[in-house]
Amino acid sequence: MSGNTFGKLFTVTTFGESHGKAIGGVVDGCPPGLVLDENDLQHDLDRRKPGTSRYTTARREEDEVKILSGVFEGKTTGTSIGLLINNTDQRSQDYSKIKESFRPGHADYTYQQKYGFRDYRGGGRSSARETAIRVAAGGIAKKYLKQVYGIEIRGYLSQLGPIAVEKVDHAVTNTNPFFCPDESKLDALDAYMRDLKKEGNSIGAKISVSAINMPVGLGEPVFDRLDADIAHAMMGINAVKGVELGDGFDVVTQKGTEHRDEISPDGFHSNHAGGVLGGISTGQELLVHMALKPTSSISISGESVDIHGKSTDIITKGRHDPCVGIRAVPIAEAMLALVLMDHVLRHNAQNKDVQSVTPIIPASKPNVS
Amino acid sequence: MSGNTFGKLFTVTTFGESHGKAIGGVVDGCPPGLVLDENDLQHDLDRRKPGTSRYTTARREEDEVKILSGVFEGKTTGTSIGLLINNTDQRSQDYSKIKESFRPGHADYTYQQKYGFRDYRGGGRSSARETAIRVAAGGIAKKYLKQVYGIEIRGYLSQLGPIAVEKVDHAVTNTNPFFCPDESKLDALDAYMRDLKKEGNSIGAKISVSAINMPVGLGEPVFDRLDADIAHAMMGINAVKGVELGDGFDVVTQKGTEHRDEISPDGFHSNHAGGVLGGISTGQELLVHMALKPTSSISISGESVDIHGKSTDIITKGRHDPCVGIRAVPIAEAMLALVLMDHVLRHNAQNKDVQSVTPIIPASKPNVS
Amino acid sequence: MSGNTFGKLFTVTTFGESHGKAIGGVVDGCPPGLVLDENDLQHDLDRRKPGTSRYTTARREEDEVKILSGVFEGKTTGTSIGLLINNTDQRSQDYSKIKESFRPGHADYTYQQKYGFRDYRGGGRSSARETAIRVAAGGIAKKYLKQVYGIEIRGYLSQLGPIAVEKVDHAVTNTNPFFCPDESKLDALDAYMRDLKKEGNSIGAKISVSAINMPVGLGEPVFDRLDADIAHAMMGINAVKGVELGDGFDVVTQKGTEHRDEISPDGFHSNHAGGVLGGISTGQELLVHMALKPTSSISISGESVDIHGKSTDIITKGRHDPCVGIRAVPIAEAMLALVLMDHVLRHNAQNKDVQSVTPIIPASKPNVS
Amino acid sequence: MSGNTFGKLFTVTTFGESHGKAIGGVVDGCPPGLVLDENDLQHDLDRRKPGTSRYTTARREEDEVKILSGVFEGKTTGTSIGLLINNTDQRSQDYSKIKESFRPGHADYTYQQKYGFRDYRGGGRSSARETAIRVAAGGIAKKYLKQVYGIEIRGYLSQLGPIAVEKVDHAVTNTNPFFCPDESKLDALDAYMRDLKKEGNSIGAKISVSAINMPVGLGEPVFDRLDADIAHAMMGINAVKGVELGDGFDVVTQKGTEHRDEISPDGFHSNHAGGVLGGISTGQELLVHMALKPTSSISISGESVDIHGKSTDIITKGRHDPCVGIRAVPIAEAMLALVLMDHVLRHNAQNKDVQSVTPIIPASKPNVS
Repeated sequence: MSGNTFGKLFTVTTFGESHGKAIGGVVDGCPPGLVLDENDLQHDLDRRKPGTSRYTTARREEDEVKILSGVFEGKTTGTSIGLLINNTDQRSQDYSKIKESFRPGHADYTYQQKYGFRDYRGGGRSSARETAIRVAAGGIAKKYLKQVYGIEIRGYLSQLGPIAVEKVDHAVTNTNPFFCPDESKLDALDAYMRDLKKEGNSIGAKISVSAINMPVGLGEPVFDRLDADIAHAMMGINAVKGVELGDGFDVVTQKGTEHRDEISPDGFHSNHAGGVLGGISTGQELLVHMALKPTSSISISGESVDIHGKSTDIITKGRHDPCVGIRAVPIAEAMLALVLMDHVLRHNAQNKDVQSVTPIIPASKPNVS
Repeated sequence: MSGNTFGKLFTVTTFGESHGKAIGGVVDGCPPGLVLDENDLQHDLDRRKPGTSRYTTARREEDEVKILSGVFEGKTTGTSIGLLINNTDQRSQDYSKIKESFRPGHADYTYQQKYGFRDYRGGGRSSARETAIRVAAGGIAKKYLKQVYGIEIRGYLSQLGPIAVEKVDHAVTNTNPFFCPDESKLDALDAYMRDLKKEGNSIGAKISVSAINMPVGLGEPVFDRLDADIAHAMMGINAVKGVELGDGFDVVTQKGTEHRDEISPDGFHSNHAGGVLGGISTGQELLVHMALKPTSSISISGESVDIHGKSTDIITKGRHDPCVGIRAVPIAEAMLALVLMDHVLRHNAQNKDVQSVTPIIPASKPNVS
Repeated sequence: MSGNTFGKLFTVTTFGESHGKAIGGVVDGCPPGLVLDENDLQHDLDRRKPGTSRYTTARREEDEVKILSGVFEGKTTGTSIGLLINNTDQRSQDYSKIKESFRPGHADYTYQQKYGFRDYRGGGRSSARETAIRVAAGGIAKKYLKQVYGIEIRGYLSQLGPIAVEKVDHAVTNTNPFFCPDESKLDALDAYMRDLKKEGNSIGAKISVSAINMPVGLGEPVFDRLDADIAHAMMGINAVKGVELGDGFDVVTQKGTEHRDEISPDGFHSNHAGGVLGGISTGQELLVHMALKPTSSISISGESVDIHGKSTDIITKGRHDPCVGIRAVPIAEAMLALVLMDHVLRHNAQNKDVQSVTPIIPASKPNVS
Repeated sequence: MSGNTFGKLFTVTTFGESHGKAIGGVVDGCPPGLVLDENDLQHDLDRRKPGTSRYTTARREEDEVKILSGVFEGKTTGTSIGLLINNTDQRSQDYSKIKESFRPGHADYTYQQKYGFRDYRGGGRSSARETAIRVAAGGIAKKYLKQVYGIEIRGYLSQLGPIAVEKVDHAVTNTNPFFCPDESKLDALDAYMRDLKKEGNSIGAKISVSAINMPVGLGEPVFDRLDADIAHAMMGINAVKGVELGDGFDVVTQKGTEHRDEISPDGFHSNHAGGVLGGISTGQELLVHMALKPTSSISISGESVDIHGKSTDIITKGRHDPCVGIRAVPIAEAMLALVLMDHVLRHNAQNKDVQSVTPIIPASKPNVS
């Protein structure tokens, strides 16, 4: 209840600090009979892993996940699944200055105030290190959703600073270190990041995550709507400051005639809604966007105070991503998988299995995402 | 668990359909000793009430809330508070066509598919009618937050279609039917809405809600961050398609040096973060924005299908808001109050009372919101 | 979270004090499509109702339940169900002495200390009046369990003071005001209660509740076992001080060879376990017993203190049951129905529908309960 | 939600099977600032550990718990605490017969039916091995309760088969392998257990757990009463078939005048209630009893069926406790600690800190437990 559990029926409870002995978690509620091993989870952990390109932090985490329980003879048993990743590469010496003062824009200040005390090494619990377990847990959900329902989840970078993607080709996304789905932007991204690194600065980003082959009917009115739970999940990712479904903030200037997705016997004509109406999935592509702030851990000096309220200047040395938005792509995919998995179980609890619902119209017309 | 409860420690569980006998709810977790009567709740209910201006639905709801329990001799007892609002003005005859077909952009289709069955009168459970109870419950939270912590919550319209507010004067907001905080925009809004009504169309809006005199320390890492729970609350309001904290989507093009809010012994220099760092409140103004789509219930014919999948055209007669965003202002205030109240109790459960925290720096410098 | 919600997937959230305007609640999670009206709930409310015999309190409550939402055209819609019972017969004047002092054995003292304040009229929230809503909510669960799964729930009195039932004939239970299943004990019960009333005293009781046609597989290891959740439900009924499954405290002197229920291809040979192994239902009869203390509200003077800690004597006048155990029978049935309903939904969420499980052996051999 | 999390505000989520790689868990909600290290938890783990006497299973588990997170510089940080115990001594070869058939009285049958599949090695998730993590988690709660509130929790054996304890001397309990508080019974217990072992049989037991220095005010009406949550916790311990508060089933034959605990300015005269009135603690000693069945894993052949429903005979070899009740003593202490800790936080969330409540009367008169 103090916030380290995600989900209601398919739950993930995590623990671990950046520079502690290990990070880990418990996945509860996984249906029995899913074929599962550690390799299923390792793929996305490797995608998230820092140190894979020169654009993300140089810290080399092994991020090798172990499944400690809940799987027997290669299949999930229906009992809770213990996950563990040992922390191996920690250079605690980098963080001595942080101990006594607050990086502007960082959780240092709020943790200190909330708890009167904090593990200052590498950001402690506020570090994005913790998201590795989300990715591992999300991998279980992803596999179940794909195997049982055919649902596929794909994330990608939509914008990095001034460079906006113009074309979404999912085949391109995983071929480059930016998770950029538009081949024509790769050179510009490369150049931009090189300059940024030289400058010692960081930059914001917009990322997107989509689910296709969605069933109709996921989502619980009136508070735990599918979109509300997605917003909760995405805003809970480090650095996220905004979340949109479908047309998002563009709806502010849309008229009803523009926005409403008209329907014909062979499907919806458009998908301004992003796949959710009244908090419940329509069966169309689910489309979520989010904005991630530039990391506050930069090597340009900033004004701050120490824990006694005295003025000080801070430069964050250590190893940090100049654009945390990039690595957030597999995290956002994992969080979407967790939300969908939870809502599949919630739906099935109260209603017939979501698979047994016959859509009145096809989920989408050709060429309508 | 099927979604009609909001909150974890300060909970609201609601029931009721647009055209049923009554709507109501149970507020659980309110501390004992709060002076409370129905008038405390009625004020915001009246602000939300349709039929108060020519720009919102002509349906006249009395929206008179009754407190059925949990208050004794004028004070809350610590036990659950029952709330009830009878439905009085229902013209069920307006909705005969809806019974057999789906309004494009409306929850008709998804409810039918999820439950195999729906109360089609006035949107049933998917109607915004249900939010009246959120407003009543939020009124309890608002009063507690104000009285015990001095926290004040103020919502306002930020943009309606093409008309964006340029100045936020909270003294202006409640003097006009648009909840517009910028006096210079009132004429334009008036003219725009008159034309829209003539046209039979609807329009999107952006609204904002802020909390001042915030304590530092509210929010539970890592999943139930304050901002994540706010996103859940706001995205769960009918028609909301996007939520932002602080600079929101503007962060995409910001550099680290621009975004980070530097700190001096007399406070933060800026508030790009919107009052939350690492999911925990900083003590600065909490600032949330959201985008609301144009209602799909318009009197311009649209293409759709009936429950058998056959093609049909639909015009929504009934009485509907051309801009649902306007009336959402008191709803957003209520939801923010519920989130803050919940997090106050969650904080107090695990830590010393949030009041006992001494901020290391003042919450804000003069002239920094 | 402050305790007025029962269940996780099929939830009941209640409100109301003994002498407030009304009591009520919200049932959430009911599957759509169940044929339901108020008469389905009224039957058990009438069984629970005080004033039906001279052995229970003379207070005449109408206890007429209204369904305010969640049912449309005679069927549940899948949305939350609002329940309301107005309080009609309240004689507040009976309770003036209680205001300033604590009845020994009553919740007066603990409520005053916990909340610093209490609604002293008729016991306020601690009154058994609140259980009427449990019975109404349980009626929904009962109907669903019976209709979809064939599960039947039957409660009965097992012992009243020194008079222990020797034979359980469910056909007899509802023919007498004691819910006694043994016709041969009716005269003794009648005589005992007459004497007790004359004496102005009260007496304890043991009641039992059973479910037959149970599916195999209900219950969630390791904490939310079926038996653990039943114990929570039953111990949460006013006046209950002990709960047993199957042989209960008799197991203390049993050897393994005696206790274990051996199995043959045509069923279990015995049912010492009471229908639960490892926290999961076996498909056998579920058998629960509980002990209810004698009510503390008696007309024999007792020693106590007032709210200032000064010595005082107390006689409870008002109208009170000499044996609260009797009326607890329909309450216990309702609570068991709520637990089973919750576990049916929990099972179905994570696993295939409980109906699709083929028991390896028949649930029970003839003549084995 | 599928049952592996205990508590609402102070939560423990566990994982692990008897013969998997490790067992572990996450404790969430622990207040920051508690001095804590692994030795604090190891003491009770050693008390629970099998192989410590010839009366419990010969399996030698190291049960060495590691704290992986949530503690920094010797104090809890307020973030989640990861716990891990590696499984070291597993002899999987003992369990080949069990794979295909069901031990009568064991969870084999129900797990197979619920999940269609089970980890048959050593009982898998249904093994009492899992309770080691409860004990470790309970150790954190115990330390906090003792240090902050002075609450002390003491468990003991009350009866083993025919041998009932007559005197409770807490100083004696931990000096013998039976947790027996009555020195005069030690020889009889020793002799009884020796005979039982020779016989290859098992026996039931009654154990008790008490808390002293209780604050007044813990417990949430109406469903999550302190006694209801205790019943849930205790009935959730493997093999428990009955739970009592205070006089328990003895209340069945008590009259109101006997049972009610009269009050004088210097305290309650008696404690029939066991320290709870109306679901809320009175400040008196909290007294809980429970009945544990004889383990079904015995070396005397029993009749059963295999997974195809064919008749078979079963002898459980392996290493098993002849009286599981004995080792349940530290488990019951841990569960009580978890419940009390949870209710302390729940109380503090909604009310002033439980420490700030001034009892109107002293918790107990001398010589009244």
